[in-house]
Amino acid sequence: MPNTMQRICFILHVKKDRLEEYKERHTKVWPEMLEALRETGWHNYSLFLRDNGMLIGYVETPDFRKALAGMAAKEVNDRWQREMKEFFEDPEGRPADRQMEPLPEVFHLD
Amino acid sequence: MPNTMQRICFILHVKKDRLEEYKERHTKVWPEMLEALRETGWHNYSLFLRDNGMLIGYVETPDFRKALAGMAAKEVNDRWQREMKEFFEDPEGRPADRQMEPLPEVFHLD
Repeated sequence: MPNTMQRICFILHVKKDRLEEYKERHTKVWPEMLEALRETGWHNYSLFLRDNGMLIGYVETPDFRKALAGMAAKEVNDRWQREMKEFFEDPEGRPADRQMEPLPEVFHLD
Repeated sequence: MPNTMQRICFILHVKKDRLEEYKERHTKVWPEMLEALRETGWHNYSLFLRDNGMLIGYVETPDFRKALAGMAAKEVNDRWQREMKEFFEDPEGRPADRQMEPLPEVFHLD
C-alpha cells in the first residue's frame, strides 16, 4: 500500500447468539456492496471475530471520513446496514457504519 | 501484499497504568528489533491501543507460526520481550510474543 494510506482499526460488538449467522452472511456479501466499498476507497479490508462477539475491523484508505461518507451516500449500503443492524450490540442502536471509531495506532513497521 | 500472505490479528492487554510509557517505548523501538522483525517476515505490522489497555496487532506474513518462531530465536527479541513483559496483563505471566493468538478472519476485500 502507498504511504498515503491511513491504516484504520475499529471495534464493534456482534450479539453472541448471532455469531454463526453473522459469519455466514459475510461469506456472501452482495457483489454490489463489495463494488461500493471498492469505489469509495476501502482497501485491504478485513473483519476478525472473537468468540465473545468482539469484531475487529482493519482497513486501508486514503481518508477514512471520506470512505465512510462515500458509503453513507450509497443506496446499497443503506440496505446492507438495515439488514446487519440487528446483529450488533449498541446501546445507542446505531447501524454498524456509525460506530466505526478509529483506534490510535501506536506502532507501525512497513 | 501478495495473496500468499496470511493476515493476522491478535489481542493483548496493556496495564492501564502503563499506557503512556508503553506508547512512548513504541515510538523508539530498537533498530535491531525492527530489523529482526523484517528478517523473520513481519510485514505491514501495526499496533493499535484502546484507552482501556486493549492492544490490537495486525500483521501480514507468509506463515505466522514461522514468524513467531523466527523471532523467538533472535537474541534481541529476548531482550525486548524481557523489557516489555511488565507492561502486559496476563494471568499466566507470559511474554507478549507467547500470547499472540490469531483471531478468525470472517471477511476480506482486497
